[in-house]
Amino acid sequence: MSKDGSAAHAPGLADVVAAQLALRAQGPLVQCLTNSVSTNFMANGLLAVGASPAMVDNPEEAGMFAGIAGAVLVNLGTPTAAQVEAMRAATAEARAKGTPWVLDPVAVGALPWRSRVAVELLRHRPAIIRGNASEIIGLAGLGSGGRGVDSAAGAAAAVPAALALLTHATAVSASGPVDHVLGRVANEVVLVRVAGGSALLPRVTATGCLLGAVAAAYAAVAPDPFTALVAAHTHFAVAAELAAARATGPGSFAVAFLDALDAVDSVTLAALARIAAPTLVGG
Amino acid sequence: MSKDGSAAHAPGLADVVAAQLALRAQGPLVQCLTNSVSTNFMANGLLAVGASPAMVDNPEEAGMFAGIAGAVLVNLGTPTAAQVEAMRAATAEARAKGTPWVLDPVAVGALPWRSRVAVELLRHRPAIIRGNASEIIGLAGLGSGGRGVDSAAGAAAAVPAALALLTHATAVSASGPVDHVLGRVANEVVLVRVAGGSALLPRVTATGCLLGAVAAAYAAVAPDPFTALVAAHTHFAVAAELAAARATGPGSFAVAFLDALDAVDSVTLAALARIAAPTLVGG
Amino acid sequence: MSKDGSAAHAPGLADVVAAQLALRAQGPLVQCLTNSVSTNFMANGLLAVGASPAMVDNPEEAGMFAGIAGAVLVNLGTPTAAQVEAMRAATAEARAKGTPWVLDPVAVGALPWRSRVAVELLRHRPAIIRGNASEIIGLAGLGSGGRGVDSAAGAAAAVPAALALLTHATAVSASGPVDHVLGRVANEVVLVRVAGGSALLPRVTATGCLLGAVAAAYAAVAPDPFTALVAAHTHFAVAAELAAARATGPGSFAVAFLDALDAVDSVTLAALARIAAPTLVGG
Repeated sequence: MSKDGSAAHAPGLADVVAAQLALRAQGPLVQCLTNSVSTNFMANGLLAVGASPAMVDNPEEAGMFAGIAGAVLVNLGTPTAAQVEAMRAATAEARAKGTPWVLDPVAVGALPWRSRVAVELLRHRPAIIRGNASEIIGLAGLGSGGRGVDSAAGAAAAVPAALALLTHATAVSASGPVDHVLGRVANEVVLVRVAGGSALLPRVTATGCLLGAVAAAYAAVAPDPFTALVAAHTHFAVAAELAAARATGPGSFAVAFLDALDAVDSVTLAALARIAAPTLVGG
Repeated sequence: MSKDGSAAHAPGLADVVAAQLALRAQGPLVQCLTNSVSTNFMANGLLAVGASPAMVDNPEEAGMFAGIAGAVLVNLGTPTAAQVEAMRAATAEARAKGTPWVLDPVAVGALPWRSRVAVELLRHRPAIIRGNASEIIGLAGLGSGGRGVDSAAGAAAAVPAALALLTHATAVSASGPVDHVLGRVANEVVLVRVAGGSALLPRVTATGCLLGAVAAAYAAVAPDPFTALVAAHTHFAVAAELAAARATGPGSFAVAFLDALDAVDSVTLAALARIAAPTLVGG
Repeated sequence: MSKDGSAAHAPGLADVVAAQLALRAQGPLVQCLTNSVSTNFMANGLLAVGASPAMVDNPEEAGMFAGIAGAVLVNLGTPTAAQVEAMRAATAEARAKGTPWVLDPVAVGALPWRSRVAVELLRHRPAIIRGNASEIIGLAGLGSGGRGVDSAAGAAAAVPAALALLTHATAVSASGPVDHVLGRVANEVVLVRVAGGSALLPRVTATGCLLGAVAAAYAAVAPDPFTALVAAHTHFAVAAELAAARATGPGSFAVAFLDALDAVDSVTLAALARIAAPTLVGG
């Protein structure tokens, strides 16, 4: 990738397949500072895609560990004062080492304390920001001193906010029935839409959180964060479709989804990926 | 409901069905301050019954969030000093706003520190107290300055203790092979027994914790806490019966139970609910 | 067992079967101070083998609770300052009461802060130390003032380190494709190898953590820690084989494994256990 982390070209299926093969081959160490609801499911999901999870999130160890991790995930779902201290240390170290880190701004915009934490962490320049539309709009509103949380917003409605957040991060995505992923290619901002998935995904807790962690795993091995983020969304959407075919409700879907994250390979990606042609958004 | 929260009549199947339809229609936001074992299972269980879970349990945010939640669950399973501070703030705000909150007094009576916390929280007047028989007896013993924890007590043995706790809460239940639910109808105290369930329920951790959270979800939408609590026990018992028919052990039961919580509707409730005719307990 | 906790003879299949029957019959209370990833899975796994889990890990209650527990597990996966304080109190009380406790030194050797905690806790004399080869080597290196973490080490490579740790604990094991369990019989150190298991075990998070907890459960009922540790490894390996036959990936394996931990009985143990003849290691 170029010096500023922009992609050589808009990521497509071939790049996603290459990233998935690299993820399996390298098994990167992914440090997660995440919420208490997601820990077990996230660790199992990371193992399923081929990464090696480590939930090191205390202030005593988080900074040092970020220096040896392949990527770092910071998820603001259930922050505590001590965990926030660990997040500061881990993201500072990640930036110093050039290690990619992902910010998942859960409920940012709606809750002032964690919103201030999110804005503070932006100084350490995440490679990727991933959230639902409301969170992306909420974080962008905070970043510009403005406002605007809309919990009913679809992913397309978050594109202007995601564009604004590209001043802080190299790639930004908003999850929805169709995921919207933005990144920079040369001097242009490009939008890639990833369709697929399942209506059962939002019926299982921490699936969005896991997607952020999978994006971190891909960021550890992909040529640039934009490619990593498109690959994570695609792997996720394909696995969700496979799992939905075997599920009889949200409980069995969660189990089948872990099986499917593991089963996804280049053949299933090529057969089932629904990555739309990239479109220009701005410069 | 009347000014003191008492029910217009003893809750029966028609009330449970109406509450279940309201829960699906409204999807209330349920704030959970709960133990570390239960978080993921509780969030998934709340999603399955149609509620929207939010595990906001830090002192910085819990009070404010209780002001926007539809109901609050406080579970004393693995309290920390910081979480207890958050519980104080959330229950104070819930009381101030008239938002129903549920107390699940895990291991109260057996452990002095959390027992003091439980007694302190009673001042903020929970709508509902739900526990196993030992916990209900334990909490009642503390509340009256007495003692008496009997870990072998059946739910029927907890009826006098539950009756005593109605000075602190609007509805109280003790879980067991037959659940015992007490509430006030006009000037009478009424007992409603809910049968069903499965012997596999106590073989899966945090099922009782989840029941407390489901009671909070129903309390956000039902006409009164007594109706909400009977509805939660009934929904739970019916789902457990459905799940047991598909399970080959506690692992597969937990998965099938989440599927069944989602699948339960007015037809299955009407077909499978086993709500005994109410009996008078005292005044 | 003898005064120093050594076994009367090297544990074999008959001892494992007897221990498993005792576990089912007694249902011991096992206190777990464990990492945030493992809590739910560990509690469910303990329930499945017939124990009664209690995750009491705050400084206000952990010491007192260790006085009434049948055994205590200390797992260093995601330690916090408060949890470490609770670990100190619980292990001190366990030692004072003669209650067996298990140390699972997750990532010890690689991370200095928790490594110091592990060395400090050794003073309270765990009955059992269980880890993967790297952790056993790492902890032994710290204990002797030396060094030596090898994350690629197989379980056999950890035998010298496990031998060294027998100055601190009564039985020590290193997990791997073939588990290596060391203990003392009279004045001899004996190695028992337990084969079986499944390649899916390390693909599910917290399975190793759960094994430590199951070892604690067995330690509460077995005649000595060496027998308890061989029984836990054997129960685990047999359950994993049963589960793998029903699984289509890591998600369904985790569910089937909980079912299988529950289903294992003396017949399946006798049919499927692969306990090698004991070998002398040193004195």
